[in-house]
Amino acid sequence: MASQRVYIAIIGAGGVGKCFLGQLADLAARRPATHLSLCYITTSKKAVYSKDYSDISITGAVDSLAASTQAPLAIPALADYLAAAPAKVVLVDNTSSQDVADAYPLILSRGISIVTPNKKAFTGSYKHWQDIFSSAANSGAKVYHEASCGAGLPLISTVKDLVDTGDQITKVEGIFSGTLSFLFNSFAPANPSGAAAGKWSAEVSKAKALGYTEPDPRDDLNGMDVARKLTILARLAGLPVESPTAFPVESLIPKELESVTSGDEYLEKLPQFDSQMEELKAAAEKEGKVLRYVGSVDVTTQTLKVGLQSFDRSHPFAALKGSDNIFSFHTKRYGSNPLIIQGAGAGGEVTAMGVTGDLIKVLSQIA
Amino acid sequence: MASQRVYIAIIGAGGVGKCFLGQLADLAARRPATHLSLCYITTSKKAVYSKDYSDISITGAVDSLAASTQAPLAIPALADYLAAAPAKVVLVDNTSSQDVADAYPLILSRGISIVTPNKKAFTGSYKHWQDIFSSAANSGAKVYHEASCGAGLPLISTVKDLVDTGDQITKVEGIFSGTLSFLFNSFAPANPSGAAAGKWSAEVSKAKALGYTEPDPRDDLNGMDVARKLTILARLAGLPVESPTAFPVESLIPKELESVTSGDEYLEKLPQFDSQMEELKAAAEKEGKVLRYVGSVDVTTQTLKVGLQSFDRSHPFAALKGSDNIFSFHTKRYGSNPLIIQGAGAGGEVTAMGVTGDLIKVLSQIA
Repeated sequence: MASQRVYIAIIGAGGVGKCFLGQLADLAARRPATHLSLCYITTSKKAVYSKDYSDISITGAVDSLAASTQAPLAIPALADYLAAAPAKVVLVDNTSSQDVADAYPLILSRGISIVTPNKKAFTGSYKHWQDIFSSAANSGAKVYHEASCGAGLPLISTVKDLVDTGDQITKVEGIFSGTLSFLFNSFAPANPSGAAAGKWSAEVSKAKALGYTEPDPRDDLNGMDVARKLTILARLAGLPVESPTAFPVESLIPKELESVTSGDEYLEKLPQFDSQMEELKAAAEKEGKVLRYVGSVDVTTQTLKVGLQSFDRSHPFAALKGSDNIFSFHTKRYGSNPLIIQGAGAGGEVTAMGVTGDLIKVLSQIA
Repeated sequence: MASQRVYIAIIGAGGVGKCFLGQLADLAARRPATHLSLCYITTSKKAVYSKDYSDISITGAVDSLAASTQAPLAIPALADYLAAAPAKVVLVDNTSSQDVADAYPLILSRGISIVTPNKKAFTGSYKHWQDIFSSAANSGAKVYHEASCGAGLPLISTVKDLVDTGDQITKVEGIFSGTLSFLFNSFAPANPSGAAAGKWSAEVSKAKALGYTEPDPRDDLNGMDVARKLTILARLAGLPVESPTAFPVESLIPKELESVTSGDEYLEKLPQFDSQMEELKAAAEKEGKVLRYVGSVDVTTQTLKVGLQSFDRSHPFAALKGSDNIFSFHTKRYGSNPLIIQGAGAGGEVTAMGVTGDLIKVLSQIA
């Protein structure tokens, strides 16, 4: 078969973006049937592109960005530029930018496919969700976002397969946050080893020191990241969830510390509130259970919730290790034992893998 | 978009075949962008088709087969018939037929795509494996076989995604057999409940009575079904495994009972050998472990093996329930904690789901 050209445009060259560039270079070297032409790459400040869409070296892209004096195109101008390319185009959005997410319907309506880990695009209003997929359906462009939940774990593809083949998903529950997984696996281990678990505040400080939390740990502990990912899976399972704030989300931040000005101040004062978490942990232990922070959607009753739950020590959620995610899909076909997927749900390489896997799926359909 | 026609031909209308027909009818009703035309359906004895490829009712196909007086086409004639169809064709092989499997390279070389749960096609010689995929690559036909291992669980797609995005799979291990999962979960439970586990022979008889084994349970207990599925995953992970008999497979059939003439005689004499399994179980328990029947491939050392292994009670393989399968994928990217997928790995509806999911993927590429 003759080598066919597909243009690739990339927004974002941070942690995930750099890993993706490595995987893209590898893919381009191994995929001679499609010539992958990088025609645009941008950070929030600088861009590299040319009017004649000539190839940008993938392996040299980060250096080219550093040396560039070109400003990024505004999104409407970028859509014009890509829509005028002399072959099909895939836009890879490796940002968590709201502005880019807002423009997905416009970009897709111009026939430009999108692959992305950007959660914001899929957790806005339900109308925005519908606009994204109807724009794609109308233009024939593809939009894939495996890495918007659970990084490279095959979650979104599995939900789609279940729904598309006619199964009925009755319930999805999971440990959606690597940070909160790590915290509770340490704070309330299912199989305590020699070393006693630390107080809650000590575990949060440890997690922060190890780089497992956001700069301000409250951004993990408010539960909103879990609520966003749950919204995506629930919508894919068929529920018209209005937004990630449309259902109960239990925050683990003591009320008194919600408005302190910095993460450091929060961490400093957190030990004063350790008894709250100790009591919850002890109550669970009294029943032979352990605490875990879980998101769940009961599709039948249309109920979503995010918060603490207790699980038997033999439950797969209790036995989780490190910062792994775990998701169980209860469906009509799978009956009493759910389909379970677990593994790392965060990290540059596994997130980029979700994006690269999506790109391969799009290429198989458009190239 | 205008409705595009794709022809579907089906071989096999047994347990999986009937479930697939139900899912296909549902898919055809929900997928107006592609008109799915059933143009051929056959059992080993009877077929339904017409020279002008006119639509066979999907919902009426089983009745039409029962009433048919047409003989099946021989495979070369079937390939001619399908290659001459006035639109693209997907052949769905819902059999476990060696003859059909042998013809995949021919069928694919004629531009006819294949989706199938038929393990035989992917567990013959390594040359046959290569012929299948090179025939498909040359003609542009697609070949998907998710349900050839673990039914509808997303195993093959996950291995492909890992490999295609440039990850290095270092090790795959799993409980590949629903029958052996059920037997060991009962015989050596990780969390014994009130009722004591039965002797090995009693558990085998119980599994047979519940319909969890082949008519002759030795067809499960010889380990060859596990060896075949392991061969498929190992080949996808990049190893040129010559055949499912090219590596050690531990049979659970006592030597003395290998040649008794019937499954019934085997079951009758099995209690005489219960002490063998009791000893193995006790040895594992002495170390705080439980026995499980596992297939594993160490990609780095190119070592495959199938047989009994002992696992800590907190290991995910120990905590399995019912007849579930479980698979862990160790890769460079996933590091110390593997990606794990578990759930039902057998059954008509979940097997058909693997086939239907593959069909949808093929349609997205050819239609």
